[in-house]
Amino acid sequence: MSEIKSWTTHRDAKQQKLENAASLLDGKFAKTKDAKELLELLISSNDKVVLEGDNQKQASFLSKVLASVDPEKVHGLHMIMSSISRPEHLDIFDLGIANKMDFSFAGPQSTRVSQMVADGTMQVGDIHTYLELYARLFVDLIPNVVLVAADKVDREGNLYTGNNTEETPVIVESAAFKDGIVIVQANEIVDKVPRVDIPSDWVDVVIPADEPYQLEPLFTRDPQNITELQILMGMMAIRGIYEKHNVQSVNHGVGFNTAAIELLLPTYGEQLGLKGKIVPNWEVNPTPTLIPAIESGWIKSIHSFGGEVGMEKYIAARPDIFFVGKDGSMRSNRAYGQMAGQYALDMFVGSTLQIDKYGNSSTVTNGRLSGFGGAPNMGSNPTGRRHSTPAWQSLRPDNDPLGKGQKLVVQMVETFGSNKKPVFVDHLDAEEVRKEAKLKNVPIMIYSEDTTHIVTEEGIAYLYKTDSMAERQAAIEAIAGVTPVGLRSDAKTLADLRARGIVALPEDLGVSRGQAKRSLLAAQTMDDLVEWSNGLYNPPAKFRSWS
Amino acid sequence: MSEIKSWTTHRDAKQQKLENAASLLDGKFAKTKDAKELLELLISSNDKVVLEGDNQKQASFLSKVLASVDPEKVHGLHMIMSSISRPEHLDIFDLGIANKMDFSFAGPQSTRVSQMVADGTMQVGDIHTYLELYARLFVDLIPNVVLVAADKVDREGNLYTGNNTEETPVIVESAAFKDGIVIVQANEIVDKVPRVDIPSDWVDVVIPADEPYQLEPLFTRDPQNITELQILMGMMAIRGIYEKHNVQSVNHGVGFNTAAIELLLPTYGEQLGLKGKIVPNWEVNPTPTLIPAIESGWIKSIHSFGGEVGMEKYIAARPDIFFVGKDGSMRSNRAYGQMAGQYALDMFVGSTLQIDKYGNSSTVTNGRLSGFGGAPNMGSNPTGRRHSTPAWQSLRPDNDPLGKGQKLVVQMVETFGSNKKPVFVDHLDAEEVRKEAKLKNVPIMIYSEDTTHIVTEEGIAYLYKTDSMAERQAAIEAIAGVTPVGLRSDAKTLADLRARGIVALPEDLGVSRGQAKRSLLAAQTMDDLVEWSNGLYNPPAKFRSWS
Repeated sequence: MSEIKSWTTHRDAKQQKLENAASLLDGKFAKTKDAKELLELLISSNDKVVLEGDNQKQASFLSKVLASVDPEKVHGLHMIMSSISRPEHLDIFDLGIANKMDFSFAGPQSTRVSQMVADGTMQVGDIHTYLELYARLFVDLIPNVVLVAADKVDREGNLYTGNNTEETPVIVESAAFKDGIVIVQANEIVDKVPRVDIPSDWVDVVIPADEPYQLEPLFTRDPQNITELQILMGMMAIRGIYEKHNVQSVNHGVGFNTAAIELLLPTYGEQLGLKGKIVPNWEVNPTPTLIPAIESGWIKSIHSFGGEVGMEKYIAARPDIFFVGKDGSMRSNRAYGQMAGQYALDMFVGSTLQIDKYGNSSTVTNGRLSGFGGAPNMGSNPTGRRHSTPAWQSLRPDNDPLGKGQKLVVQMVETFGSNKKPVFVDHLDAEEVRKEAKLKNVPIMIYSEDTTHIVTEEGIAYLYKTDSMAERQAAIEAIAGVTPVGLRSDAKTLADLRARGIVALPEDLGVSRGQAKRSLLAAQTMDDLVEWSNGLYNPPAKFRSWS
Repeated sequence: MSEIKSWTTHRDAKQQKLENAASLLDGKFAKTKDAKELLELLISSNDKVVLEGDNQKQASFLSKVLASVDPEKVHGLHMIMSSISRPEHLDIFDLGIANKMDFSFAGPQSTRVSQMVADGTMQVGDIHTYLELYARLFVDLIPNVVLVAADKVDREGNLYTGNNTEETPVIVESAAFKDGIVIVQANEIVDKVPRVDIPSDWVDVVIPADEPYQLEPLFTRDPQNITELQILMGMMAIRGIYEKHNVQSVNHGVGFNTAAIELLLPTYGEQLGLKGKIVPNWEVNPTPTLIPAIESGWIKSIHSFGGEVGMEKYIAARPDIFFVGKDGSMRSNRAYGQMAGQYALDMFVGSTLQIDKYGNSSTVTNGRLSGFGGAPNMGSNPTGRRHSTPAWQSLRPDNDPLGKGQKLVVQMVETFGSNKKPVFVDHLDAEEVRKEAKLKNVPIMIYSEDTTHIVTEEGIAYLYKTDSMAERQAAIEAIAGVTPVGLRSDAKTLADLRARGIVALPEDLGVSRGQAKRSLLAAQTMDDLVEWSNGLYNPPAKFRSWS
């Protein structure tokens, strides 16, 4: 019945490309010096290309090579990248090698991204959370070529990605089974890999890199920079949220607020008798500030999106806690981690740059298109969730027989940011950015409807208890300090909100402001963390004040 | 600072178990006849055990062996299973080998599950969607032992899972990197696997099965059973939803309603000039009723949760459409498929057994605790989604500057079910089931708030356009026919709802009832499907009327 047509056009195109490159390949292996020529043969103009740019790990050799190809030969690429991190990620747009981008996060390059969008150098497909972007690799962003990074590759082409496995498996799977070309940069070619993270069957081309891939210690927070205000907020959160809701599983954002909580568990948490009662299970990167809580027996399990520089030996020595392979190194996995972060946790705790009077928050500020990363995925209430936990269920509305629980989504902010600007505003800068960048929707990180608690140095607003938007606004005003939003609060309303448990001040929670001292932290310096780890944690040089 | 303790208790326990079983193992390999003794040595009482029970593929040899172990030696297991499908999945509870269950779906065994919960034989941890259950394997349901099924295993222990890879990778990863024991039943031991789906590094024990694993053709729908009412509803859906919202990516449920749509695309859809304009990208099992749409050039890509018996050769010959490995067989992946189904699609279209007056729906009926499967995950609006598509954006509210789009979640039902009972009811049976089974929440499959459209033989209710619960109820009543709920509708309200585009009847959509004939289906029999496939589709015996 059907007309005669080819059903193998992708396979044939791949085969043709590999044949064109055959003289540069010895089996799957190529020479470092041939990388540019190879990419010119294996990537066609207008291809969809995934360039691995994890939060931490960067396919930095391949991104440099991609920026060196001849735009006459390769142009108009549609790039798909979870993280825009390196200058050449954007150079390829200036050079005309690429013209369209679908991405998740652009932290370090967010200003330049904004400019490129404004001047039309870069067409943005869309901005995603990590998990959405991975999901689309199997639906409507199926790649023609993927460029990824491995630690070690054996003679057959099996990949070892070790601690920084991160997003490599999900990217490779999307190409390997849809006749895409999988190109790997390798730090090292070895006879035998410590373990196989990705089978050689899934790999087409391996190129030894000229230097090891870039790897950043993104989630290391020096305890020395934690302020007493942050300690006060941490104490409030532990009493007023972790304890109150009986939270068992959690993701922490990457700020000093949550680092403070991690360092308060073994001291303040212990005083409260909470050890063994709260937060045994974590989905989080292996941040060094977790070490004292782990060593004190607070934590049963940690699954991680990615690795963290300096934590390798410590993780290897704690396989009861971390996900560790038979070879002794961690297996991280950003796709499964985001899946767990969305669907399996009681609580997400994050921070932000602006919160509007309704409770919407964003890290997008004027002139910076920073993207979303993973926060909106973890900091949202997945309405498909059907299993229940005590914490989730504690947010169930009383008055609805068909009601269900909700994920705790907590924002912790000081009322004024480090730039002395108010965090609480009437309108988010994101509303302006939407217009400038011609985005379909305002780039809100976490919507008011998903936000269940806000913690400031003033107190906690239990937003999930509010019955109306007016009441929600009043609760936010009550903890917004002397920001313009906060100044609208009055004593009578505050008293009423406190009486009804919608707002709690430190004294309502039994938290003593006087106790909020740096001496309450289980570790006050990087050196303390090293000591807690019995010397197993090895901080990167920039975090070392000693030699 | 920390007290001296072991950080390798899981690793030590695993090592001890494997040492106890050493005499039964030759490397990773065991003999079929030793399976019972092996499980008694490798599984400890009270262990958390994942037993692979996909929708289609069942680790049936290992489940039989597990039901044969001595309950004196192994008891009190906490089972984690995506699908309760086989009698021995429940026998192990009668025998005391297991006492707790976390699961997703219990279709074939739902009556017995209900009884076991009522009489206390089975304690239910919770009921999940597939994706939630996988997510918890990395957080608070980390398994001690996993029992999975492979097609072929090579001498090193590399696994080939082929078309039915399904949930095996995510289960294995959760155990392999947390010192759990990975036990695999193999249909066949071979010198070289066609491809490596799971590396041998991740596998501890391989047991040749006494017979190939059970595999059911769960998603095959014989076109002969599609009614003209279903054809009418399919025509309305194509005009009033697919075309109207410009839907590009979709998941179809497994009923005859969606099979009708699949078979209408190459005929009715073609007449409407929609070819090349709608639904190029699918996340769906490879259902045979998709063959005519594929052959007619409607479909660009299909990613699948699992395989479908009889479709193997057809899939192998269509690698432009399906995800196929270098060996020529499909790679399915239920975890990534559910991830895509939740986050990357414009639309989910499903069916259900009951819809209440508010629009909540459930397949749980009295005496049957059938669980959730994947539908609530795909049939929900993930509030963490930040990327936009025209279909998603078409549901954006007009009156909210901070608003965003929404996933289309469509329920297609005839107003009376095949049992002649009304589908539209004031109260779901699920409310009673909640009490009987002592569930925390009413087991609702898809909540009203997530349901954007309902299609019946009467018309379409565009629920996303309603402003209040009262209006939503009126829209549902207007298409609920002569059910008790539908009888509350009146002509004036219907006229008003039609005028405002909240309800559309066939004539409003330009759909002619007279055209809704079986002859409009691109294939009317299984034989037609085989012919469309050029003989590549090979229906299972029970679907063959010819020899």
